[in-house]
Amino acid sequence: MDLSSTIGTLLALGLLAAAVIIAGASFSAFADAPSGMVVIGGAIAAGMICVPLKTFFNIGRVVKCVFLNKTANIVELIEQIVSLAETARRDGLLALEGRIDEIENDFIVLGIQMAVDGTRPEVIEDIMRTEIESVATRHRDGKYLLDQMGRFAPAFGMIGTLMGLIIMLGDMSDPSAIGSGMAVALITTLYGAIISNIFFLPFAEKLGFINKQELLVMEIALRGILGIQSGDNPRVIEQTLSTFVPPKLRLSKEAA
Amino acid sequence: MDLSSTIGTLLALGLLAAAVIIAGASFSAFADAPSGMVVIGGAIAAGMICVPLKTFFNIGRVVKCVFLNKTANIVELIEQIVSLAETARRDGLLALEGRIDEIENDFIVLGIQMAVDGTRPEVIEDIMRTEIESVATRHRDGKYLLDQMGRFAPAFGMIGTLMGLIIMLGDMSDPSAIGSGMAVALITTLYGAIISNIFFLPFAEKLGFINKQELLVMEIALRGILGIQSGDNPRVIEQTLSTFVPPKLRLSKEAA
Amino acid sequence: MDLSSTIGTLLALGLLAAAVIIAGASFSAFADAPSGMVVIGGAIAAGMICVPLKTFFNIGRVVKCVFLNKTANIVELIEQIVSLAETARRDGLLALEGRIDEIENDFIVLGIQMAVDGTRPEVIEDIMRTEIESVATRHRDGKYLLDQMGRFAPAFGMIGTLMGLIIMLGDMSDPSAIGSGMAVALITTLYGAIISNIFFLPFAEKLGFINKQELLVMEIALRGILGIQSGDNPRVIEQTLSTFVPPKLRLSKEAA
Amino acid sequence: MDLSSTIGTLLALGLLAAAVIIAGASFSAFADAPSGMVVIGGAIAAGMICVPLKTFFNIGRVVKCVFLNKTANIVELIEQIVSLAETARRDGLLALEGRIDEIENDFIVLGIQMAVDGTRPEVIEDIMRTEIESVATRHRDGKYLLDQMGRFAPAFGMIGTLMGLIIMLGDMSDPSAIGSGMAVALITTLYGAIISNIFFLPFAEKLGFINKQELLVMEIALRGILGIQSGDNPRVIEQTLSTFVPPKLRLSKEAA
Amino acid sequence: MDLSSTIGTLLALGLLAAAVIIAGASFSAFADAPSGMVVIGGAIAAGMICVPLKTFFNIGRVVKCVFLNKTANIVELIEQIVSLAETARRDGLLALEGRIDEIENDFIVLGIQMAVDGTRPEVIEDIMRTEIESVATRHRDGKYLLDQMGRFAPAFGMIGTLMGLIIMLGDMSDPSAIGSGMAVALITTLYGAIISNIFFLPFAEKLGFINKQELLVMEIALRGILGIQSGDNPRVIEQTLSTFVPPKLRLSKEAA
Repeated sequence: MDLSSTIGTLLALGLLAAAVIIAGASFSAFADAPSGMVVIGGAIAAGMICVPLKTFFNIGRVVKCVFLNKTANIVELIEQIVSLAETARRDGLLALEGRIDEIENDFIVLGIQMAVDGTRPEVIEDIMRTEIESVATRHRDGKYLLDQMGRFAPAFGMIGTLMGLIIMLGDMSDPSAIGSGMAVALITTLYGAIISNIFFLPFAEKLGFINKQELLVMEIALRGILGIQSGDNPRVIEQTLSTFVPPKLRLSKEAA
Repeated sequence: MDLSSTIGTLLALGLLAAAVIIAGASFSAFADAPSGMVVIGGAIAAGMICVPLKTFFNIGRVVKCVFLNKTANIVELIEQIVSLAETARRDGLLALEGRIDEIENDFIVLGIQMAVDGTRPEVIEDIMRTEIESVATRHRDGKYLLDQMGRFAPAFGMIGTLMGLIIMLGDMSDPSAIGSGMAVALITTLYGAIISNIFFLPFAEKLGFINKQELLVMEIALRGILGIQSGDNPRVIEQTLSTFVPPKLRLSKEAA
Repeated sequence: MDLSSTIGTLLALGLLAAAVIIAGASFSAFADAPSGMVVIGGAIAAGMICVPLKTFFNIGRVVKCVFLNKTANIVELIEQIVSLAETARRDGLLALEGRIDEIENDFIVLGIQMAVDGTRPEVIEDIMRTEIESVATRHRDGKYLLDQMGRFAPAFGMIGTLMGLIIMLGDMSDPSAIGSGMAVALITTLYGAIISNIFFLPFAEKLGFINKQELLVMEIALRGILGIQSGDNPRVIEQTLSTFVPPKLRLSKEAA
Repeated sequence: MDLSSTIGTLLALGLLAAAVIIAGASFSAFADAPSGMVVIGGAIAAGMICVPLKTFFNIGRVVKCVFLNKTANIVELIEQIVSLAETARRDGLLALEGRIDEIENDFIVLGIQMAVDGTRPEVIEDIMRTEIESVATRHRDGKYLLDQMGRFAPAFGMIGTLMGLIIMLGDMSDPSAIGSGMAVALITTLYGAIISNIFFLPFAEKLGFINKQELLVMEIALRGILGIQSGDNPRVIEQTLSTFVPPKLRLSKEAA
Repeated sequence: MDLSSTIGTLLALGLLAAAVIIAGASFSAFADAPSGMVVIGGAIAAGMICVPLKTFFNIGRVVKCVFLNKTANIVELIEQIVSLAETARRDGLLALEGRIDEIENDFIVLGIQMAVDGTRPEVIEDIMRTEIESVATRHRDGKYLLDQMGRFAPAFGMIGTLMGLIIMLGDMSDPSAIGSGMAVALITTLYGAIISNIFFLPFAEKLGFINKQELLVMEIALRGILGIQSGDNPRVIEQTLSTFVPPKLRLSKEAA
């Protein structure tokens, strides 16, 4: 689970709820179904126009990724690859088949499977690179969609408020209703600001970070698997891959 | 038909209509012909100044493209090219003439026609590349125009509202008319926000996606036709073109 | 004359005038000399600070260009160059002197004159490239100045409105004057929005398009003149230059 | 200590305090714990979602860096490296061990230590470059986080104000409370503007400057240490490193 | 003196003063020392945080440059360099010492002095390039600082207005004071808009132009001095340097 996404989202919502409670106001003053419909529905509709249908329906997967991604431990990843390389060197490539079950990362499983099946290196690299490319595209399109929805949500908030004001101003026969009419009109602007600034925009930013991290992991995995297949010395593989690791984690090893 | 453009646009408009109905307001409160004239006309006028007349009148074609583009099926496209390559290899280039009628894509028809006519490869590539370039330019100019209109529409909305406010403030002899005067003044801002955020801006974004997709299809077609003309083996053509396809769709074939 | 600039500007102004007439308001409600002075003068002053004096005084030429540029007909341009090349090949370079009068484009006249005078090719290219560079600089600086004025005009509109509000709020002894005071205060914001969104910003965008088009024409002319001077075959010159033309216009010729 | 950060921050806060005192207002009118909670908490929460947890908790270190960084004296740095090079040339690399205690900069200590330990040059360069990269990443991520918080703080200020307005407008039974209700509602917007424009945004800009300076220092140190290890003449090292210094500081030496 | 900076600034201020006089208002309505303190002081404080102290204190020099820079006459500059080259060729490099007094441009004096002193060409180029670099850095940092202050000034204007509104809304016991309270509150926003749009932002833009011009002059001077030192033919130097001059100024010479 991505702790910072989860804590951050709960903290932001909790703070707003706490502010309402401290102010002694009732939550019902902020609840208005048509307002939610206009803002959330509008942001969804505008986002849907922006992208192909397939990209749009990926949004669930993208948001899940914001909360459920696991920061891969690069040091462990390299250790696993080195251990696989040792098995391959000692017992041959086919021996890796027995170890596939221990591997969690689907991308590595795909690579090892192809290596075991005797797929040619160029084909393995081509397929894995296309896979990397397609993960990068999915993340980039997902970030783009979240950015667009974060841009359109406040716009629909303003549209809703303008509609509310026009309705209210068109019928001022009951002056005592002006205040509550305006309060309702402002709710759409509030909704637009909240969903944009707590959900869409920060999620888009986090997705950018996750993307960078995941591409790094996939790059390391790809190089490791190609090294294993060509029968490189496990030590050489380790040394090559560890240039991706900050030196503090490496220094102890270097000395050893 | 582009489903996401169509559904998104209808959804956004439907939500706003539903919000009006739920609020028990009449649609006539939001209808004001001069306001529409100022905002829509102003956005059109400003957009017209920004670009050459020819680019401006392409806007109909551009918007049609947002709704009516068909996402080309790249796998089918490659299959068709491979099948044409087989015919050419078996029965000679001239045999392709009989198959031109089955091809839907005008760009491929153009290429095959030139190949059948014995046009030199450099000329074919030159003409098809210029065609690709001119599609890219039309899309880019179209996106640019929509972006500009999405930028100027809210500006004319504000201009209309300022004009309405100045008229209203200049004559406050009848206080009971202030509310309705302000309601009318706000309508232009509402119009500007709606046409910008439901039409111009999301359409511009979708056009960017369509452009990328269409250029990819044209690139694949161009390479396929050049391969057919030079008499390449259909299998080689298939392999070259399929590097454009994500591996999941390819893997099964690779095994075969 | 640039039709789209002219029609667009007149349309935008006409729409605003029509809206005033439909609203039954008098134009005098929107006329306020000091407001115009602050906004237009302010935008001019700020624009003047931004650039060297020489660039600033080019603004007349730049705006004239927005309305009076003629879209060069590239096909005709190439035909003219090819025809000049035929004369040169048949009757020698000096024969071009007699045809200089038929050429409208000053840039081509300059090039042909130098070729006739026997100027060395490197010098011709050097001088014509510097001329191209200086046209590009004038356009870029002109666009930059218009963009800056389009940015500062609304700022001075806001400054004027703030000043009007401060004056009005400072003396509220006559409540009946508040409305008209505020109306006058808002006029500067209106002026700022109008001159920015009808004049400065769209003009700047159009200038960008004109620049691209004119540089293309000059590039074609330069290559043509260098080809003429080196005595190239007119057909080769035609073929080289026509890669700048979209294929639809070319196809008929290719067949011929 | 970074004087400009410290003076600037204190000056900005002092000016606001002075303005309150001059206006004869009480500070309590601007103190509202729930408002602070919403704005500061909200900016923290949104910033936390944007980045990995580890990056977020680096923020203390980053802010400390804004106030406590010492502008390294590049001339002194070069002198120190040259002096170390002389020791190494005269008494051998191992003699540097005795001088490690005089060095303040941890990065240089790391490099010298590795040189003394006989680490291979490629390994030293690799480790030091990864260290430089990781400092650059920490600064860039820190600047990014401050920029995001500077963007979200005003958004949460607006959210708080909208909530306050909705509460106030929903209950206007006591007209005399409207003014104070609105005052409280505006406090969140004020807080958002203050923490964004005095803290987050200027700190982010300063961090960019510090980053550039520190990377320059590390680059000089790295080149110096590699020169020392390869036994370069101290004069050559000095000359190479001093191309990083503006000529005014160098000229006197050149003459000598 | 930079005429456009001077005229533009005086024009903008004059227009605002004229508008006040025409409106029959008193200047004292716009004078409020604490407001000026908050806005100007705040912009200074935020700008000071953004940059190192040394860069901040360069601001006086930078603003002086906006008003006092002299547009160098590039044609005269080239003539001077050519004349120096003739002296050097006729009477030897040392003869240049006698002509140093006629040179106004400090950068050229520096170069000639070094050439006379027999400094090696690489050293001259190195020192002059570092000097060019340091002028570019000073200008870029100066523009950056002005841009930041132009960004923070309106923010502090808004902070001041919010503070004024909160004070005013907190004590509405005297309704007749509301108008004047709000007028005072708005003064900070007005100040922020004025100093940002008349001073900081246009000054930053002008500085960008001055920078480009000055770097061009220094580049020409550097090439000229290196040519003089290596004893190039004055005609060759002239020809090389004049590629920096637009052709209209050159054409007459070419004919000669």
